[in-house]
Amino acid sequence: MGDKDRNSVFIGEKPFMNYVTGVVMQFTTKGSSEVIIKARGKFISRAVDVAEVARKRFLENSVDVKKIDIGSEEFQSKEGKQVRVSNIEITLGKKLV
Amino acid sequence: MGDKDRNSVFIGEKPFMNYVTGVVMQFTTKGSSEVIIKARGKFISRAVDVAEVARKRFLENSVDVKKIDIGSEEFQSKEGKQVRVSNIEITLGKKLV
Repeated sequence: MGDKDRNSVFIGEKPFMNYVTGVVMQFTTKGSSEVIIKARGKFISRAVDVAEVARKRFLENSVDVKKIDIGSEEFQSKEGKQVRVSNIEITLGKKLV
Repeated sequence: MGDKDRNSVFIGEKPFMNYVTGVVMQFTTKGSSEVIIKARGKFISRAVDVAEVARKRFLENSVDVKKIDIGSEEFQSKEGKQVRVSNIEITLGKKLV
């Protein structure tokens, strides 16, 4: 597992606070200087919620949004249709003191 | 209405392609150099979809993601609970030739 994967939190169906705690603990317990929140499709909204709650409610004034990337992949569904699925990567980073 | 509002597309419940067409026409018919796609809450995922389809399927190679901002507002719900709603602003801009 590379450094990047270790610092990533993938957003899915689990309870919302699991992801928030995951992000906060990366910074606090594990001492990461950066955490990347990743999501696809309908979970993109949730990724933004996780980033906002983590940074404003739990890590207030210590973490910034460093970078946001969006993208998408096109692939063929079982029914033979072309489907495009979007994704997002939100990088939070410790503020320089 | 300021320049910024004129170039903004707010994502909501309307059919998906309405928003894609709105973005594409801002660049083509109205000659804007920048369009800002805005959304709140659950529509954030949709905003990313609109940006991706507009730029990859319809405006291929002519428009880039210039900037992405996320934020959130906290307010009191009717039931007296504190609610946080996230938002996103995706700025697409014409590539410099």
